[in-house]
Order: sequence, then C-alpha cells, then structure tokens
Amino acid sequence: MSAADAVTDSLKRMRAEFGDVPGGRPADYIPQLGLADPDAFGLALVSMDGHRYSAGEAEVPFTIQSVSKPFIYALALSVLGLDEVSRWVGAEPSGDAFNAISLEPGTGRPANAMVNAGAIVTTALIPDAPDEPAFERILHCLGRFAGRELDVDEEVFTSEAMTGDRNRALAYLIRATGTMPVDPVLAVDRYFRQCAVRVTALDLATMAATLAYGGVNPVTREQVVPAEVAARVLAVMATCGMYDGSGEWLLRIGLPAKSGVSGGLIAVGPARFGLATYSPPLDTSGNSVRGQAALRALSERYGLHLMLNPALPGSTVSLVTTADDLPSAPSAEHERVLHEQVGVVAAQGAIDFTAAERVLYALDESGPDGGSVVLDLHDVTVVDSVALSMLHIGLGRLSADGRRAAVVDPRGLLGPTETARKGTGQDLPRYATREAAVEGCAKALAGED
Amino acid sequence: MSAADAVTDSLKRMRAEFGDVPGGRPADYIPQLGLADPDAFGLALVSMDGHRYSAGEAEVPFTIQSVSKPFIYALALSVLGLDEVSRWVGAEPSGDAFNAISLEPGTGRPANAMVNAGAIVTTALIPDAPDEPAFERILHCLGRFAGRELDVDEEVFTSEAMTGDRNRALAYLIRATGTMPVDPVLAVDRYFRQCAVRVTALDLATMAATLAYGGVNPVTREQVVPAEVAARVLAVMATCGMYDGSGEWLLRIGLPAKSGVSGGLIAVGPARFGLATYSPPLDTSGNSVRGQAALRALSERYGLHLMLNPALPGSTVSLVTTADDLPSAPSAEHERVLHEQVGVVAAQGAIDFTAAERVLYALDESGPDGGSVVLDLHDVTVVDSVALSMLHIGLGRLSADGRRAAVVDPRGLLGPTETARKGTGQDLPRYATREAAVEGCAKALAGED
Amino acid sequence: MSAADAVTDSLKRMRAEFGDVPGGRPADYIPQLGLADPDAFGLALVSMDGHRYSAGEAEVPFTIQSVSKPFIYALALSVLGLDEVSRWVGAEPSGDAFNAISLEPGTGRPANAMVNAGAIVTTALIPDAPDEPAFERILHCLGRFAGRELDVDEEVFTSEAMTGDRNRALAYLIRATGTMPVDPVLAVDRYFRQCAVRVTALDLATMAATLAYGGVNPVTREQVVPAEVAARVLAVMATCGMYDGSGEWLLRIGLPAKSGVSGGLIAVGPARFGLATYSPPLDTSGNSVRGQAALRALSERYGLHLMLNPALPGSTVSLVTTADDLPSAPSAEHERVLHEQVGVVAAQGAIDFTAAERVLYALDESGPDGGSVVLDLHDVTVVDSVALSMLHIGLGRLSADGRRAAVVDPRGLLGPTETARKGTGQDLPRYATREAAVEGCAKALAGED
Amino acid sequence: MSAADAVTDSLKRMRAEFGDVPGGRPADYIPQLGLADPDAFGLALVSMDGHRYSAGEAEVPFTIQSVSKPFIYALALSVLGLDEVSRWVGAEPSGDAFNAISLEPGTGRPANAMVNAGAIVTTALIPDAPDEPAFERILHCLGRFAGRELDVDEEVFTSEAMTGDRNRALAYLIRATGTMPVDPVLAVDRYFRQCAVRVTALDLATMAATLAYGGVNPVTREQVVPAEVAARVLAVMATCGMYDGSGEWLLRIGLPAKSGVSGGLIAVGPARFGLATYSPPLDTSGNSVRGQAALRALSERYGLHLMLNPALPGSTVSLVTTADDLPSAPSAEHERVLHEQVGVVAAQGAIDFTAAERVLYALDESGPDGGSVVLDLHDVTVVDSVALSMLHIGLGRLSADGRRAAVVDPRGLLGPTETARKGTGQDLPRYATREAAVEGCAKALAGED
Repeated sequence: MSAADAVTDSLKRMRAEFGDVPGGRPADYIPQLGLADPDAFGLALVSMDGHRYSAGEAEVPFTIQSVSKPFIYALALSVLGLDEVSRWVGAEPSGDAFNAISLEPGTGRPANAMVNAGAIVTTALIPDAPDEPAFERILHCLGRFAGRELDVDEEVFTSEAMTGDRNRALAYLIRATGTMPVDPVLAVDRYFRQCAVRVTALDLATMAATLAYGGVNPVTREQVVPAEVAARVLAVMATCGMYDGSGEWLLRIGLPAKSGVSGGLIAVGPARFGLATYSPPLDTSGNSVRGQAALRALSERYGLHLMLNPALPGSTVSLVTTADDLPSAPSAEHERVLHEQVGVVAAQGAIDFTAAERVLYALDESGPDGGSVVLDLHDVTVVDSVALSMLHIGLGRLSADGRRAAVVDPRGLLGPTETARKGTGQDLPRYATREAAVEGCAKALAGED
Repeated sequence: MSAADAVTDSLKRMRAEFGDVPGGRPADYIPQLGLADPDAFGLALVSMDGHRYSAGEAEVPFTIQSVSKPFIYALALSVLGLDEVSRWVGAEPSGDAFNAISLEPGTGRPANAMVNAGAIVTTALIPDAPDEPAFERILHCLGRFAGRELDVDEEVFTSEAMTGDRNRALAYLIRATGTMPVDPVLAVDRYFRQCAVRVTALDLATMAATLAYGGVNPVTREQVVPAEVAARVLAVMATCGMYDGSGEWLLRIGLPAKSGVSGGLIAVGPARFGLATYSPPLDTSGNSVRGQAALRALSERYGLHLMLNPALPGSTVSLVTTADDLPSAPSAEHERVLHEQVGVVAAQGAIDFTAAERVLYALDESGPDGGSVVLDLHDVTVVDSVALSMLHIGLGRLSADGRRAAVVDPRGLLGPTETARKGTGQDLPRYATREAAVEGCAKALAGED
Repeated sequence: MSAADAVTDSLKRMRAEFGDVPGGRPADYIPQLGLADPDAFGLALVSMDGHRYSAGEAEVPFTIQSVSKPFIYALALSVLGLDEVSRWVGAEPSGDAFNAISLEPGTGRPANAMVNAGAIVTTALIPDAPDEPAFERILHCLGRFAGRELDVDEEVFTSEAMTGDRNRALAYLIRATGTMPVDPVLAVDRYFRQCAVRVTALDLATMAATLAYGGVNPVTREQVVPAEVAARVLAVMATCGMYDGSGEWLLRIGLPAKSGVSGGLIAVGPARFGLATYSPPLDTSGNSVRGQAALRALSERYGLHLMLNPALPGSTVSLVTTADDLPSAPSAEHERVLHEQVGVVAAQGAIDFTAAERVLYALDESGPDGGSVVLDLHDVTVVDSVALSMLHIGLGRLSADGRRAAVVDPRGLLGPTETARKGTGQDLPRYATREAAVEGCAKALAGED
Repeated sequence: MSAADAVTDSLKRMRAEFGDVPGGRPADYIPQLGLADPDAFGLALVSMDGHRYSAGEAEVPFTIQSVSKPFIYALALSVLGLDEVSRWVGAEPSGDAFNAISLEPGTGRPANAMVNAGAIVTTALIPDAPDEPAFERILHCLGRFAGRELDVDEEVFTSEAMTGDRNRALAYLIRATGTMPVDPVLAVDRYFRQCAVRVTALDLATMAATLAYGGVNPVTREQVVPAEVAARVLAVMATCGMYDGSGEWLLRIGLPAKSGVSGGLIAVGPARFGLATYSPPLDTSGNSVRGQAALRALSERYGLHLMLNPALPGSTVSLVTTADDLPSAPSAEHERVLHEQVGVVAAQGAIDFTAAERVLYALDESGPDGGSVVLDLHDVTVVDSVALSMLHIGLGRLSADGRRAAVVDPRGLLGPTETARKGTGQDLPRYATREAAVEGCAKALAGED
C-alpha cells in the first residue's frame, strides 16, 4: 500500500499546515462539548472504490450534531418521497443563522432541512416502522451510511436536553403553524438524541462518500438511499449546508458541505469522494476553523471544485477511431480498404444522455453515406435507460438512412436482440470483437457490391 | 446527420409537450417587451464538442436582459480577479426578488451578481481597456461567449432607460455605501445597454455551453474566460441564479441556471452541455413559464441533475487489467508466466486527483511485493498538475518499496525523463506499447533471477 | 339624571350608526370564542368623576384576552419598577403582528409588552407575594382596575391552553435568550389564565378610566397604580397598542388604545375619560371592526384626539385681573386708587410647571416696579411640587426686586409660613380673601408713602 | 421680568448640569457640519402665551436639517389634506434608521414622514402656488412657524447636494414605486435646500410651540396650520419622531420630539410649551447627546410627560356651587331660602366634550326635581361646537323633566336666543350675573307657588 500513501500524505500535509491555525473555541453551551480536546484534528477521505485515507485524530469519537442533518433528510426523502417531505420543509437558503426562528411566510415551513427548525421537522417526520421505532430507524440508517453500528452519547444527550429551550421553541412554533405532525417535546427529544450519535472523522467521510456515490456506501456496497435521494441531499447541502455562508462556500470551495457544533465537517465531491474533518474550535458562525481552512486548501490545490471542468483537448467518453488506431492491425492493406467504407466508433465508460449524444454524433460523422459503421461498446461499463433509448433511436435512424451498422457488445448492454429490433426496426448485427465486426461489415459491403 | 437527430427529437418533443402550457404573461413594463410573440418557443442545446441542436424559435432574436448577468460577472472576475470583485459584490443568495433593495449589512455590498444591484456593480466594475471602451468590451465578451458578433436593440435600450428609476435608485444607493466606483447614471445606462444586447436561444445555449466547458466556447474553441472563472460563475448561478427559488430549483432540476425578463432561460450541465429556452410568458417571479417546465422535464427524464451520480458497477477511469484482458495476446503460455509477476494498470481519459488516487491504489493492488507493474497511459488524454505530482510521488514510493515499475506513455504525459527522475529518484522505463512494457518488465525480472 | 343623558345619547347614536357595519368574524381558533354573539355591541364611557355611561351590550361578560396586557404591564411596573421591567421587555413598536416571533436583536427582549411575547414576560415577572400567589395578585389587580371582583372563564382557559403552541414557542424562545426567569409552561399557563378573566365593556371602560386618571380608579377612588406607572402604560399603548397599525391609529384617532381577540377594545383620553367597546367580529388584524369604527367616529366628532389643542382665545389657568373684574367691588373709587399700585393675579385649578410659568409671568406684568401684587390662589385646587418650588423662587425674586407681594391662600397651598419664608427669605403676607389682601397691600403702600 | 426668571433658571441649570456630558461627535459627513462648535449648547422654551425663555447658545444659527420634517409634513397636510398625503406616505414607525431604504410592502409608501424617504416625498408633494414657487412656499411656511423670515445656508446646501447619493437613491426608488409625482433629482435638491434652512434654538422652540398651540404661533398669534394638522403632526412625532428609539422616548420622556443631524432637537408639550435644544455632538443614532439628556431631565423633574395626569383631589372645569360659596352674599337669610330650591352650577375655562359631560352631570345633581338650576358661564372662555350641542340637548332634557333652568352667559357663548330655543324647545332665561339669575329663578319659583 505504498503508492497510495501519496493520498494519505496529502491529508497529513493539510493536518500539519492547518493544525496550528489559531482562533476559534470549542462549543461550550453544554459542558460535555467544552471538554473536547481543542488540538484534536482528524482528516479522512473515502473514495468511490471505498478506499479510506486518514490523518490525525480521524478515529476519535465525538457527537455528530448537525452533520446528521443531511442524512436524516435523506432518510425522510427515502421513506416519504420528495413531494411529501416538501410539504413540511422547504429547500431555500434562509440567509439566517443555524438556529434562526424563521419559517416560510405563507406555508409556515422551515426554510430548509439544514437549519435546526428543518431538521427537527425531518426527524419528526420519520415514522415508526413495524419492527423498528423511529429513533432506532434513524440510528440504523446513520449506521448504514457510516458502515458500522453507531451508538448515542447519553451524557451529551442529557445535557443538550437540559438546555434546549430554543429548539423547544422552534418545535412548538412549527407545530403551531401546522407543519409538524408530532408532539414538540418528543420531537426535540428525538432530535437531541440523534445529534448525540457518536461518530469519527472516518465515519463521516464514509457517510459523505455514500452521498457522493449515488447513495451506495462505497465500503460496504450497500445501497443506503436511492441515487435520486442522494442527489437531492447534495443539492440542498450545496445551497444551504454552510448556513448564511453557503453561497461564498460554494463559490470558493465548490463542494456541498455540512458542519456540526462539535467540530465535525463533511464535504462531498459528487462521484469522486467523501471528505471529513474533526477539529473542535469553532468560528463565530459555529463552523470548525481548521476544518474549513483545510477543506479550502484541499479544494484549491487539488482542483476539487464541483464546477471546475477545464476544457480538455480530448475526451474519454467516445471517439471516432479510424482503422489506423486499431491496436493490432493484422494487415495494413486490408485495413485501408475497409477504412474507406467501414467507420468505427468506440465508446468507453458509462453512457448517459451526454455520452449518447456524442456517440450518435460520431456515428453520423463516421463514414460516407451508404457506408457501414461499427459501434464498439467493448469498453463501455454501463448504459443508462435514457442513453439506451437514444442509441436505439439513433441507430434506427441510421438504418433508415441506408447505412449499415453493427455493434460490438460483448456484455449485451443494448439488451436482447428483440428489444433492439423494436427500436431499430431491423436486426442489428452483433459481434464479440471489433475486428469481427469490421470484417462482418466489410463482407456485407462486399456482398452488396 | 441522422443518428444525432435523436437529440433534436428530444428538444422537439419538449417543445410540443410544453408549447401549450398556459399561464404567464410577457413582461410589459416597456412596450417593446410586451410586443413579443407569446407563442414563440425555442429550445437549443450545445454539447461540449460544439454540436448544436435546436427546436422551435431558436433563432428568433430577443434582448438578453438578466441572462447577461453571469457573463458580465465572468468578465469582471477575469479582468479583476475574485478577491477584487468580492470587495464590491457578495455571493450569498438574497432570498429576495430580483430587484430587491437590499445590500449586505456591514459591507453595503449587493448580495450577489445575479440580482440587479449586483449586476449594476459588476457592469460598473469593468474598466475601459486601452483600445476598447468598457461597453464595447462587454459587448465583445458577450459575443465571444456566443460565438458571433452581437448588437444592441436600441429601441429596447431607450425604453428601459426611460423607466429605470428602481435601478437608478439601486445605483445611487450602492455608490452611497461606497461599493461602486463610477457615476450611478452612467452605470445604469451601461447596465441597460447590456441588457438590450440581442441574442437567440441558440446563442444562449452556446454561451451556457462555454461556461459548462471550462470557459472555452465549444463551437469556436476560443478560451473566453479561465476555467476557474467559469467554475465560480456556475457556483453563483447554482445558489443565486433563480432568485428566491434557487434552492428549490437546484433541488429539483439540479442545473445552474439564469433567467431573463424577455423570456430567455439558460441551464448548464457542467462538462456536459449548455441549454437555453426562449418563451416570453413569465410567471409572477419573472421566469419563463414554458422554459422552466421544459427544463424541468428534460432534467428529470434525461437524468441531467448535477448531483445525480448513480452508483455504477464499474468505472472508466482506471482499472487493473490482467494479462487475460490484453487485446491480442501473442502467446497464451508466455502471458501466463508473465502474469504471475507483472501487473498491468491501464488508465483512460483525463487523470485528476480522483483518478490519480485510483491509479495509485490499483498500482498497490496490482501484483506481489517484489514484482513489477506496468502503468499503461495509452488511453489517457490528459494528466493535470495535481495528478502528475501524485503519480510521480506514488511511483517513487513504489520503487522505494522495491517494486519495479514501467510506464506506457506514448504521448509523454508524465513529462521529460528528467522530470520523472526527479520525482522518483530513479529512471522509470518508458515504453510505447503495453506489450513492450510487459516484455521489458518480464525480461528485467528474468535478468534479476 | 336627564341632562347627562346627552352623553348616553352619544353612545347610543354610535351603537345605532355602527351596529350594522358589516364584515369581520369573531375569532374562532377556539370554539368558545366562536360562540360569541356577533351582533352584541356594547359601548361604555367612564369619566374622571367616575360617572359611567353605556349603550348596548355593555354588561355582557366576555374574556378580556389581550386587553389585559396594559394592566399586567402596569402591575409589573408597580411591583418591579421601570428599570427592572425594561431589562426584560422593550418599548418599541415591533411593526409586526400580535403574535410575531421577534425578539430584539442584541438583548433578546420582546419588542414591547403589548405583543404576546412581551405580555408573557410581564406576566411571568409578577412575583408571588407573601400572602398571595402571583396569579391571584394579577386577578386582584385587574379587579381593582375594574372596581369589582373578577373571575376566570375556566372553559376558555382550558381551550386556549390546548391550542397554545405558538405562545409556548414564544415562552421557550424567550427563556432561551435569557429574558424570562420562570418555567415556560407555567408562564404560558398563567398568561392564558389571565387572558380568560371575564369582564364587561363597562368594566373595561372603568379600567381605561383608571389609566386616564393617574392610576386612580375614578369610581372607587382607589389608587391602583402610581401616576407615573399609568403615564408610562399610556405611552406604550400610544406607540404599540394597536399592533402594526399603531401609528395610523394615533394619527387619526389620537387615543392610546388596546384591543383583544374576543372583541374588546379600550381607548384612553388622558385626564378625560376611559372608553370601551365590545363587538366580536374582528378584521384581519384581529381588531373589532365595529369597535374601531365607533371609536374613530367618536374621536373625530367629539374632538377627542389626544394632541388636539385648538388655540383658545384665553385660558383658565391664570390671568391678570384688574380691579374692574373684582366680583363685588365695594367702592369703585377706592378700587381705582388701589388699582394703580396693587396688581392682582388670580389663578384657578391645578398649578403645575406650565401654569406656574404663567403665574410668574403674570406677576411680573401685574404692576409697576415698586408696586405691590396680590397672588390670589382662592380658586386653585392643587399646586404640585415643581410649581410650588417655582412659585417660592419667583416670589422671592420679586421681593428681591423691591416689589411687595401678598397671597390669598385660604387652603394653605403654599405650605406653612416657615417653608414659604425659606424660599423667599422674608415673610409673605397671607390673606383669606382677595379684598383683604388688596386692602392690606394698599395700606402697606400707604404706610410706605 | 424677575419672577419669571425662575423659568430661565431651570434652563440655565440644565445647561450647567448637562453641558459637560461627554461623548458624541458632531456630524461630519460634510465638512460644514463638522465645523460646528461642539461646546455650543443652547436651550429655549416658548409658552402658549408666547413667552420666550432661553439659556446658552440659543441664538446661534445652524441648519435645521431633519427638524424640518414635521413642519413640512404639516404644510403638506394643510395644502393637500390627510387623505391625499396618506396616499403617498404612511404613518407607522419603521423600526429602522433615519435613512432606511424601506418602503411599505404593497403600497410602496415610505413608512412615515419623519424618515428621509418620507420627508423627500412630503417635500416633493408641495405644489407651486400661483404666486410662489414650491420652495419659497416651504421657506415662508418654516418662517411663519418660527415667527421670522428664514434663509438658506447655501454652503451647507451645496455640500449636502454633493454627498447625497443615498437620498437620491431613495428618491428614485420612491418614484419607481409610483409614490412620488416629481423628478427625483429636483425632489432631492429641494429636500436638501430645506434641510439647509438656518434657525436658532429659540426659533425651533417657537416652531415647536406653534405645534403645541394648535397650529397658532403663540408669539405672532398667526394661525400657521389648522389645529387638526398640528394634532396629527404631533401624533406622528410621538410614534416616529425619534427613529427606532421612538417608543422608549415616549415611554420615558413622554414628549413628541424630533431631532436633526446638526444638533437641533425639539420637544412639544401639547397645549403647554415648545422646547428646543442645540448641541452638535450626536450619538450613534444621530441624536444630540446633551439635548436628549437635558430634555429627559426636564421631563422627569418638571413632570412634563404627556400622559402624566396625577389624580387631582378636585377640578377646575366645573363644580356645583352652593349658595354658601357665593362670593358676596348680600343676605344670608335670603340665600338660604333660595338655596333650598335653586341650584347653581358654575363652570370655568374652555368647555369641550369632557367638560360638557361634567356640567351636565352637575346640573342633574344640582337640585331637587321640580327645582331650578342656574348654569353660570361667567368664567367660561369658550365652548366648542360639540360641547355647545351637548349643553343645548342637556338643558332641553332638563326642561322636559320639568326643571327650570337659567344661564349666566354675559358673552353670549350659548349663541343667540333663537338657536338656544331650537335646542331646548323653550326660552332659556339669560342673565348677566349669577345673583340676578338666582333671584330670577327664585322669583319664578315663588310665582309658581
């Protein structure tokens, strides 16, 4: 495991560089939080392959606090659906502090699920399951995100429950506006209990990676929530996750994120990674001072900004290959002949709407009218339903124009032959290798001659 | 061009399906806007390859209005840098209407560059260039985003200038708080003039695609603004682009967007596409009724949500290939022998931080201690500087651990040999093909025996 | 009692004229309030002499609701003092609705004691007395304002307690900001109980009259709260009593007022009268539709605006009387002689700072240097401490200037002779009648001659 | 003028006591204001008789600034009426700073005429008169309030005009919402010009006294604005005059007030006095530090709180006099006989609704059924129209009940005999003196016997 230590080194460098950043104080509104070691500083990164990297105090336990909010929201969306959840809680940045007493004019909904008011509601919305009371359900869900069983720090829970007047006020207020179906005292109790769930930075990075990876925990490979739910949670984290500094955070760091008062902070690189830091000293907005500094540096230096898509001189998703590019051309002369009449379009990776457009465009470009074209899907890993439909339609149109097409589809990504026939109105010859396909097409063309 | 008509078909279907959506009225605060054909409905999509698709009235000219805001912001960031621009305008959603009279407490800055106040400031910030007065500079910049020369609808400009008291109020207010360095009357005049620049839906889609494509116009291939600037503009569009409904928009549609009062609407799929619609009837928030409906349907049906990353069963970026996977094994027996001691890691596409981690992890996994490994970069198109550094460090650590490594790097992506040696502390054998590399490693291993 | 029926007639006319005003609905958030007779319409007026006038359903009982707020505030000010009460609740109009969830930034205080949040605090601030628990104290205080023992409508109380989430939210919120020293649940319970105290329009008019009359119930003559407290309560009613319409109300109606959700409404003419109406249908702001209409008409037609002080051609407070004005001059000739050298200043009524200034100015004007002056206080009813001090100083200065002064002070308003001497540095001759004084002065002048 | 020096002494004491209060800084946003002598401290008081008292720098000229606002509002109300003015500007406290950019939701009106936005509107509303351009009209009106011709400090005007972006913003904003009928640039120019009108503390006290005195300048005796207008201006000053501290000011000081950025401050005791101070150092809210301290002390020590009405043991307005109280009873025996059957009610001063009620009540109480009553108006100075109507109705009812009444009305306050007959349905015997009336009644009773 030595080459990949280069990744660990990155985290260690961040820890060394930002471990001495002064300023901030651990939260102390309850004694238990104030007891946290202010020098503890853990960083963790989990990749889409489930590789876990960490530095510093990444396995020190602390209470999850507000970092739980996106995951409870995810659970609520999974159980109740977006439309039902949207009846009770909005998705607009509030421009207010985390504990703002502001409900949406007109609807009485909390602004979003990332502020206390919204999180109290989403927590309250989780129904008991037949075999599992609501809080157990929440605890198990958090555990599935983290990839291990989690527990509650009862001492922190008890202390928070004793000082929670503001959250009780929120809960009563929300019920008063008709936007919470449960008893305010119970709702706040359950909310505090969930805030007191114990995690580590490595847990949080795994949880973040699960959101990044379409709701699948990349370590355990369990689908914790549907991909659509994970996408929506990330959208809300992007606009509302860092409270009244969310816009500036997305502008500069460019990663959906969420912080908690105990010093935890997560950031998500969609389809790329989950990141987490733990460092108790907080700034006046309640965000970890060192955690923010480290994430900002990581984003800037490693080009992690969600929107950062440098214009690349080429692309991996699809390309037109000429015969010259075939890796092992048996006969240059033979190829030259074929090349004149058989185009080859090779695609790689996952094919979605965007990639499908490129494939179709390349098919059009791949050869002369009346010629043949081979679509090589050997290196394609998956074709989503939108792309599948587009490919069938495109290939059908190609046939209708009188061009002959063949596919290399060793994994049967285009579906059973009957399906394909339905789309195209004709049989689409299928081959196991590109060479075979090109030869098949050449022969067919020769036969036509 | 028949296969790719499948894309055009998608747009045509949207036009047919949403062209009859009732409700909304064209803006009529000036007569010229009220004269717009309420039935005009154009859609356009431009891909990262510069392919342009459209349906309906996609080439009908109209004034750009607020859709100009992200592009002027991009120009300001390019000319002045983020820190300077941030002195004058913020990046937080205001939670207010587009023409809200709200400046940030404390700083007096407009909330963000997507509301009128902010756009007046960013417009005012553009300095005259030696050879080009500020407005010409703005007009030319918009033209470079669109890929053609644009002009001003003088009639609309004159009308807006006559009714622009609210914007004049904003301009005076902003200067009063010290956050605008130019004369309010001139600033508003220039702002109105830029709002009156004439575009089509196809222009807007190209402009959006330029933001999607790292600031490079995918049609003209011109780098209009730096990639970092495009990323930041998209971040602000994501949190602030749809005014006080930005959070809900990102939650459900999941695409950075911007609308204008003349009926234009753009949405950006970063690294994927630029989309634009034109339909004058507006809802009460000032957004195109049909444009929103069409974009929402497109996003949902075609899986365009920015954050939607379904957990895929494999990946295109890097993989460990065993000898069995070599496309044209000359000798099965020979390969079997090699396979025991030489691992092969093949990567494809663009290598960034995330991909580099996967490559390094795969190198570690690729073979026994003391064995050799070939890193095949034949299908890699680009390696960014972060990834380059990580690869050198990782390969260096591998060597330090006693494993022999070789690279297939026909395009010299890892840099000149000297550079590579600096990183690894040793010579890293380079080969033009994977077969040559495997054979080279096998021979070296044999020589060591 | 027939002449004064002219007053009753005024109220009856208002009842007749506004009893059919349509619109509004009785509050119905609890069933008991919704049961109120929408046609009930009572009006009552109580004068500073304790005369009680009424029309319509002025003796129908209903729960006092928010009309209790000024009286609880008065009790809190009496018990704790203004500075202590001001630590917990502000005195600024909130510009918000009655049940707004807004606390003062920085202090966390409710905006004022006329909104729910503030009234919950003032209610909570009332401490138990040694012999009387806090709620009994409140109930007895309300009774002293009304001039009779009051009781609680237990059914309304129970219903309100069941639907009071918003007020419970307020109470928790307030305690969370440190601005309430008692348990939120108990505070809200006590608040609801006080809102459920049963009164009639005649009771409310008496309560209002008590505030008008310097804290003294004009019927029972009991000093319920100190005059300063009554003044302050009226000031807060003036700026905050009609919620977010307080400014417009004071502008047009010009009377400190307070309304309640059960249909009660009081208005105070300071030093003039207390008015109350009862009519359950409320407008959307929660104020009685007919009550407001009647009070507005009363104010406009009867010139009751607090600030309305038409410039009068003369004044009642003090005047220079010449000898000609003496009611029964025994000898015209004798008077004429005296008149040349003895001025007479006669004052009437209550002498405060303003009146004292007029008296002193009149003394200066009343005669030639070296002449004498008689200050006739026969018709003066009271001299406040400020005026007393000013009169002594002024008379002292007069003596120092060489003018002889005498006072007619049959009730000893200027205090014992010693006190007066202290102020003036000399003996001030005192007489029982004006004639005696003038004669005394004339003789003294004659003696000096 | 020595006795009344006791009043001047009060002002001098305030000056001495508060002249050293530290803190605050003269406004310096334009150099001319910053040049003001920070030690200048003038106080002035003008009584309802037009008596003028002052101490310190009460005749030092300075620009009126925002203290002009109530007077411009008064002019607008006079010229256009309340309903028209209310279309353009509200009357609610804004809870905001003086220069807040907030217009009323829905109407777009400035909150009230005491904040800049509102004052710009009221200034703009003043139309040109046939013989007098609008600004001259404003200047002359301010002069009539002050009792002398005023002029403009052109240097201050020019400086303010150069730095007035915020007010220009307001003006454009207001016109944008449709709530100002004139050109924003002209409106602001006129507003600044009026703010630069030069006054002294003595001028301001006279202006304040004019508002106190029902719109009549007590020095010049000119009716500058109608009494209703003055009342309304005072109401708005009470709720909005001290910006966001108006509620606290009315609670504690209890006087409608208005401050200006040059250090001026006025306070009005309705029907009592006008007060003004001048001291340039301002607190952070823009109010004169020493001016506020002095006014607060004056109010507290001299009992000037508008609402302060101590319960008095008697009253001056009306009383039942028995024969024993007649000042010079010619024959005790005769009187005793009469006294058994003739009651006497003597009233003093101005009779309004409140006083009329007392008179009528006293008439009812004044004697046995079937007896006679004399209403003695000898000491009454004025009877307003409401009271006149009530007296006629009450006397009519008395007659209808069979009681004989007579009036002493030497000044004909009850109107011509015909008018009286109309009200009462009978002839009401009138006498010049009380004695004559009592004798007349006694004779009539005797005649009936």
